[in-house]
Amino acid sequence: MKQTKHGGDIYSFAKETGCKSDKIIDFSSNINPLKPKIKLNLSNIKLSRYADNRYSDLKEILGRKYETMSENIALYNGGSSAIFWLFETLGIKKCTLYAPLYGEYKRAASKYSSKIKLINRLSSPYQKPLKNSLAVFVNPSTPDGKYYDLKRLLKIWKKQNCTVVIDESFLEFADKPSALKYLKKYKKLYILKSLTKFYACAGVRVGIVISLEKNIKRLDENMPCWNISTFDVEFIKKALKDKRHKKLSLEKNRKNRKMLKKILKKSKYIKKVYPSNANFLLTRLKNIDASKLQEILKKQRILIRSCENFDFLNDSFVRFAVKDKKDQKKLKKELFA
Amino acid sequence: MKQTKHGGDIYSFAKETGCKSDKIIDFSSNINPLKPKIKLNLSNIKLSRYADNRYSDLKEILGRKYETMSENIALYNGGSSAIFWLFETLGIKKCTLYAPLYGEYKRAASKYSSKIKLINRLSSPYQKPLKNSLAVFVNPSTPDGKYYDLKRLLKIWKKQNCTVVIDESFLEFADKPSALKYLKKYKKLYILKSLTKFYACAGVRVGIVISLEKNIKRLDENMPCWNISTFDVEFIKKALKDKRHKKLSLEKNRKNRKMLKKILKKSKYIKKVYPSNANFLLTRLKNIDASKLQEILKKQRILIRSCENFDFLNDSFVRFAVKDKKDQKKLKKELFA
Repeated sequence: MKQTKHGGDIYSFAKETGCKSDKIIDFSSNINPLKPKIKLNLSNIKLSRYADNRYSDLKEILGRKYETMSENIALYNGGSSAIFWLFETLGIKKCTLYAPLYGEYKRAASKYSSKIKLINRLSSPYQKPLKNSLAVFVNPSTPDGKYYDLKRLLKIWKKQNCTVVIDESFLEFADKPSALKYLKKYKKLYILKSLTKFYACAGVRVGIVISLEKNIKRLDENMPCWNISTFDVEFIKKALKDKRHKKLSLEKNRKNRKMLKKILKKSKYIKKVYPSNANFLLTRLKNIDASKLQEILKKQRILIRSCENFDFLNDSFVRFAVKDKKDQKKLKKELFA
Repeated sequence: MKQTKHGGDIYSFAKETGCKSDKIIDFSSNINPLKPKIKLNLSNIKLSRYADNRYSDLKEILGRKYETMSENIALYNGGSSAIFWLFETLGIKKCTLYAPLYGEYKRAASKYSSKIKLINRLSSPYQKPLKNSLAVFVNPSTPDGKYYDLKRLLKIWKKQNCTVVIDESFLEFADKPSALKYLKKYKKLYILKSLTKFYACAGVRVGIVISLEKNIKRLDENMPCWNISTFDVEFIKKALKDKRHKKLSLEKNRKNRKMLKKILKKSKYIKKVYPSNANFLLTRLKNIDASKLQEILKKQRILIRSCENFDFLNDSFVRFAVKDKKDQKKLKKELFA
């Protein structure tokens, strides 16, 4: 069985609570509650034939979005696949992970690396990474959502001759500068982008790696053909056409994050709310542990993310996704009961 | 750039011929011209949330189809991905390929194996494979479509302690017994299934590996999370509900293959048509090579598959997919001009 300790496992939760999965109020997965406006006509999508194996159309559109060229983009079937393929193809045996971070990095590192150093990003981010290692940094980070200015880290990485992966899956929520601007200076830099969260389409599996052309060429040569669903390609093309989505999402996220923060800060269960630039908030509990709080909220079918399985955190930490007003009010009611 | 010497690259062909890709009559890719009857309502598909990472529903349906259990099934984003992941996870350094065969096997073997033996399946299939190697056999084979009884080969593989991959991507067209019946006896057997061809959905990326439960567990533990598109899962679930599709497709394929064979046999360009149990025919040309015949047919926007890049074949070999009557009549006109 694949690891299922992510957020978003509403299926096991639904089974446990004896209700349908759509009845669950899911604070565990960081999906934008606002969906882009999309008109997709299934009969216009050519499912019967093989797609253009280069996915040229989509790459061009993404090139415009990220102000880069098609030749700088490699596409995978989702962020997790991108991570595994990056590790596999780069074939670097030493790895430095800035933890806590998204669990799939540790799975990939355990599989492909023979030596792993975990750097506690919360307490001492400027420790020395392993020399010649693959250094992975998520920005904004997860589960706390902090955005880091990477200048000082890049100097450290260069000095240690690291190959660097910056995961910007949540950057669009933060509305902060991308590490893309370092691509020309830093030849061994790979930037991961995901549209899943911001465009509210976790079921659509497209993961993006941006790097120098020769790096992308090597990735492309090492991957299987036709790795992306034609439907998913068309979905993303349409989603990116909704030009109002970004503005509306940022406004809503800012507003609802503020509301959520207020609720959490006032709750008797919560000691601290961490600063976040993303669409989720990390909290430290008081007088209760994560599993007990989960039990309490479960009665109202509210699912939250225990951070017990994140490195450097424990069962006193819980992450809450920013949701819409209605759901947050329901959460408030339970947290204040 | 990924290898593009497959059939089905109508995009480059359209560019060359200066027409839209839907105007091309594609005899190069082996997709069933008959599509299953599907009613898919997009608004019922939950794209915004994470799918059940175990894809339990789809596995149950596939379990019933192939008369096996969910626990015996691993799912990948398409056949090519399944091949690459199989090679990667099994980690067997020696490989025996029964050639000619589907090109992605050679790409995967070149990437993951340090020693490759090619056995000419057409002239001497019962040669000794490499001891302890990963042996790959496509049945019905491609590009010729011959179905093999595997009994004698299985004995040879067992004697040589091979791990065996049987690719049954075209088996449904042949309506012949599957190697699934050997699973209990042969502990290192992996069977690949694809729905792409028979269910006319090359853009839908779902590849299936069936093996013993403990083998599948190992595969599952070594793959990224959420590797399949939610839309594609729903598409396959619906496609498999069309119970008339199989019967109709087999009837049509048999009839149209007969018609195509007749056309090809009578053409001045063709010396031999190979026996086939699948939905395509391999031919040996006379007095012309594949690229010249391609040039001739290109004028009418007909795309055919040169077999030049298949091992043990050369530019005297061309593969034609079985298409519908109308398209085959157009081909006939050109082949007899």
